Amino acid sequence: MGYPDTFEGFAVDSPKTWNKFKKTELKPKPFGESDIDVEIECCGVCGSDVHTITGGWGEFEGPLCVGHEIVGKAIRVGKDVKTIKEGDRVGVGAQVWACLKCVNCKDKNENYCPHQVDTYNANYEDGSTAHGGYANYVRAHEYFTFKIPDALPSHEAAPLLCAGITTYSPMVRAGIGAGKTLGVVGIGGLGHLAIQFGAALGAETYALTHSASKADDAKKLGAKDVIVTTEEGWADKWAGKFDLIINSSDASFDLAPYLSTLKVNGEFHFVGLADEPLAELKAMTFVSNGAKIAGSHLGNHQEMDAMLKLAAEKGVRPMVETIQLGEEGCSEAVSRVKEGKVRYRFTLTGFDKVFGGK
Amino acid sequence: MGYPDTFEGFAVDSPKTWNKFKKTELKPKPFGESDIDVEIECCGVCGSDVHTITGGWGEFEGPLCVGHEIVGKAIRVGKDVKTIKEGDRVGVGAQVWACLKCVNCKDKNENYCPHQVDTYNANYEDGSTAHGGYANYVRAHEYFTFKIPDALPSHEAAPLLCAGITTYSPMVRAGIGAGKTLGVVGIGGLGHLAIQFGAALGAETYALTHSASKADDAKKLGAKDVIVTTEEGWADKWAGKFDLIINSSDASFDLAPYLSTLKVNGEFHFVGLADEPLAELKAMTFVSNGAKIAGSHLGNHQEMDAMLKLAAEKGVRPMVETIQLGEEGCSEAVSRVKEGKVRYRFTLTGFDKVFGGK
Repeated sequence: MGYPDTFEGFAVDSPKTWNKFKKTELKPKPFGESDIDVEIECCGVCGSDVHTITGGWGEFEGPLCVGHEIVGKAIRVGKDVKTIKEGDRVGVGAQVWACLKCVNCKDKNENYCPHQVDTYNANYEDGSTAHGGYANYVRAHEYFTFKIPDALPSHEAAPLLCAGITTYSPMVRAGIGAGKTLGVVGIGGLGHLAIQFGAALGAETYALTHSASKADDAKKLGAKDVIVTTEEGWADKWAGKFDLIINSSDASFDLAPYLSTLKVNGEFHFVGLADEPLAELKAMTFVSNGAKIAGSHLGNHQEMDAMLKLAAEKGVRPMVETIQLGEEGCSEAVSRVKEGKVRYRFTLTGFDKVFGGK
Repeated sequence: MGYPDTFEGFAVDSPKTWNKFKKTELKPKPFGESDIDVEIECCGVCGSDVHTITGGWGEFEGPLCVGHEIVGKAIRVGKDVKTIKEGDRVGVGAQVWACLKCVNCKDKNENYCPHQVDTYNANYEDGSTAHGGYANYVRAHEYFTFKIPDALPSHEAAPLLCAGITTYSPMVRAGIGAGKTLGVVGIGGLGHLAIQFGAALGAETYALTHSASKADDAKKLGAKDVIVTTEEGWADKWAGKFDLIINSSDASFDLAPYLSTLKVNGEFHFVGLADEPLAELKAMTFVSNGAKIAGSHLGNHQEMDAMLKLAAEKGVRPMVETIQLGEEGCSEAVSRVKEGKVRYRFTLTGFDKVFGGK
């Protein structure tokens, strides 16, 4: 078999062998008239890939091909597709389908559709399986396939499809822009994009970190200042400062000092989804300033388009280390992401070398 | 000594003897020209009184006179007071002072002023002490003294000054009104008011309870329906229903099913401040609908006025059991509040019998 009936991708078998990738044949969903087949040029490596393959978010049945920061070329479009044409350079993020009929979908919250299909480790309602982007092709619904602006190189566009939208959406939903103040906890794969999007949206943006070594990077990315949260009493100096804090770090630290740096009714927002529970929290902790804590899942279609446009126009670019796709490259990438040893994002490239000139 | 130099109130000495009240002389702050002295007619008994005297919220130094749901007559007004005149029937809630100069105060968030003074167990900046309303008089700044609408009987107005504003403010800040859906967890002192305010604001309001015995009460109070949360799978039936859930219950239960009943980006809001920490929570729990959890502290001046007006106009009335002020009455009231044995609120009355016709 082969395309269009089967795809090929680098897959893992189980959490026990989470960093052992094997080139594997993958059966995609039947092609629908709203679907687009994308010949993949490159794919970002996301923390979600690692949470999933290590079993941190639960068991899975292998073979599993992850990857949901996909850029490539639309090579086949269903006859109902209106927004994309064959040959377009497009991106696919962490979601490939929603019902587009339910209340959430109608409210432009298809990223919260109860019937949604993730890009990998997920099944469609007909029982077919969605496969990720460490592969030669991906098949996605038109509504989850986005034109990539010309100004964005593919390997830098890729991480925007998940890490970008994940940090951008909660900012715009919280009204971040000129006159607002944003804190970003953790300067990593998500955080280094959050800093840039905060600045691009016009907010006064601060990085909060316990790695003073990343201070220079944060300032280059657009942070007005860097707050080192290992300093005794750091939170007192910043009490009541932030409209929104985007937390891209894990969640196992005491939230109270962070919440104290929010403005009244400000929001502390989780974008990194640690396997571990939050540190112990009391209702009383919210009281001194009416703080909120929140989380989110990606963003909607309109936010994705706006995010890509803003990135193109304002020069938001992930700092990317590229790595050759393959059993070795996939293994190295996920292992280093797990250890936090990347500044700040991997993109798997060289797909044409692996899959030839199909 | 005596009024205006000293007040008299029923006070406790320490958490060990939290329900042993003794009539005690109290020294108020020096009278200021923005202050109002209120001769107390009655005072509600709030869960906060019990959390405080039992030491649940921390140690305190006795003698401590609690009570912050105070209604009485303004008998002395400072020369800078503009909104209240001698003889007015007024209320004082859980806050008696704020700086009215800081950013929060200027933003109409004086309930989050970092310099605020609570009605009891609190000191002013000059070192003088604020004493609560189980007493003959209370002294409060004009900005925290509210005219009580004629339609509200004193003993029913009293609980509104804390329980009322505590439930009302988060609703209006979350935009609750016609076309919105509100859930209220716990039908008690706070919850039975939250249900009424939700309905009065025009929201479709539901009570969530594990006491099916309170279902009739909830419906009488304005709930469209009652959701019994001990039924297996209850949350599935109500997935994505609520714009806001006001939680007036403790916080030690698993929040995940409750959060699942919120609309996208909906809010689960703590108004009861349990001594115990929240049940374990993962960042992942927020993800399926972008839920928020939040808490708050009272409301601002404008919300207090609007809340009293709404209560007067729409017939929002706490269900009140009155109890004679005194060593015995105070003890019985706080003991029964601690045990949850009141439907749904106590107001201490008969202050004139205890303190005579001063």
